[in-house]
Amino acid sequence: MIIGRVVSQLFATQKNAKLTGAKLLLVQPLDLDGNEKGEIVLAVDAVDAGINERVLVVQEGWSANYVFGAVEAPIDAAVVGVVDRVDLS
Amino acid sequence: MIIGRVVSQLFATQKNAKLTGAKLLLVQPLDLDGNEKGEIVLAVDAVDAGINERVLVVQEGWSANYVFGAVEAPIDAAVVGVVDRVDLS
Amino acid sequence: MIIGRVVSQLFATQKNAKLTGAKLLLVQPLDLDGNEKGEIVLAVDAVDAGINERVLVVQEGWSANYVFGAVEAPIDAAVVGVVDRVDLS
Amino acid sequence: MIIGRVVSQLFATQKNAKLTGAKLLLVQPLDLDGNEKGEIVLAVDAVDAGINERVLVVQEGWSANYVFGAVEAPIDAAVVGVVDRVDLS
Amino acid sequence: MIIGRVVSQLFATQKNAKLTGAKLLLVQPLDLDGNEKGEIVLAVDAVDAGINERVLVVQEGWSANYVFGAVEAPIDAAVVGVVDRVDLS
Repeated sequence: MIIGRVVSQLFATQKNAKLTGAKLLLVQPLDLDGNEKGEIVLAVDAVDAGINERVLVVQEGWSANYVFGAVEAPIDAAVVGVVDRVDLS
Repeated sequence: MIIGRVVSQLFATQKNAKLTGAKLLLVQPLDLDGNEKGEIVLAVDAVDAGINERVLVVQEGWSANYVFGAVEAPIDAAVVGVVDRVDLS
Repeated sequence: MIIGRVVSQLFATQKNAKLTGAKLLLVQPLDLDGNEKGEIVLAVDAVDAGINERVLVVQEGWSANYVFGAVEAPIDAAVVGVVDRVDLS
Repeated sequence: MIIGRVVSQLFATQKNAKLTGAKLLLVQPLDLDGNEKGEIVLAVDAVDAGINERVLVVQEGWSANYVFGAVEAPIDAAVVGVVDRVDLS
Repeated sequence: MIIGRVVSQLFATQKNAKLTGAKLLLVQPLDLDGNEKGEIVLAVDAVDAGINERVLVVQEGWSANYVFGAVEAPIDAAVVGVVDRVDLS
């Protein structure tokens, strides 16, 4: 998993049938201090995240399929949480 | 997932039985501004994309298997959508 | 698998339903001599590890799903063991 | 998937039971012009490829398991096709 | 898959329940000439390999789960064979 910030949405009307209804988000990865780090990733939204929110992104293909329950879709990244805070020990 | 442009098709008549009928595409990855980025990837077509179209490519092996429904094929990348537009916030 | 040390916990109240109850840990990877190596990873806790403990982290998405048994959650990394020692031959 | 050329065979008589009968090939990756590119990969043969043939290699672990049908084997790469030609548009 | 040499064993008594009984090995990757190449990997033993033996290591998470049969464990690398020889063509 990585932490990132939602920067925009991508639209693709001609999609494989199993992706119908999926919302596609572009997410800028962040380091623990909130600075941008690395390239923007493209992920399916599984938690109804809004633009500019700080989110958790799962990047492995297989696990991402599970965010929609029984529907096994061709997904390789998903936004699965909105980050509240990090407690440094 | 990444965004790319379909540049050509690859032909392989002697294939593993589970890949029979699969169309193989070579896709040039693009950045969000439409510039070429990185090396060409080889992916199975799951959305009937044409040459020169801007497409969504799923790269994780497992999820790509789902583009053909019940048939579990040895695939590690698939073209799953044709991109309409990106809305930058 | 990699070896690392638990450095902090991350909180995300708005999570995908399948992640409810999951404890999220930040883990600093270590080399075999115990020196820090590479960037901090974000993983779900599957062994009740404490802050500062030296742990085993599984990083592949699919296998991590199994740490919670029947519940298939969108996870791509998990803490699965606490390291006792390494025997160099 | 990548394109490569079969360069040799590897023998391992003491194998995990699920790999019994599997033929292991060393494959040199190639670019689209047929030049060598990157390091040799080790893959299971799923299409009865011969030495020096130009082949398609699937590299993601999960999908590779499917080349032997119902038998789920610990494989992370497989030769799944013999390349005929590439049509550049 | 990669080729490597077993260099030591790692002990972790507090493990996720699904890893009970698993033997954890540290393996030094080798090139085809037998020279060390890259960093040591941590893998579960699925073929009863001994220290100093030259082995085959599967590194993709999903496939590694299959080395223990029906038990789906949180594993992302496994030693699945002992190498006899490589035939260069």
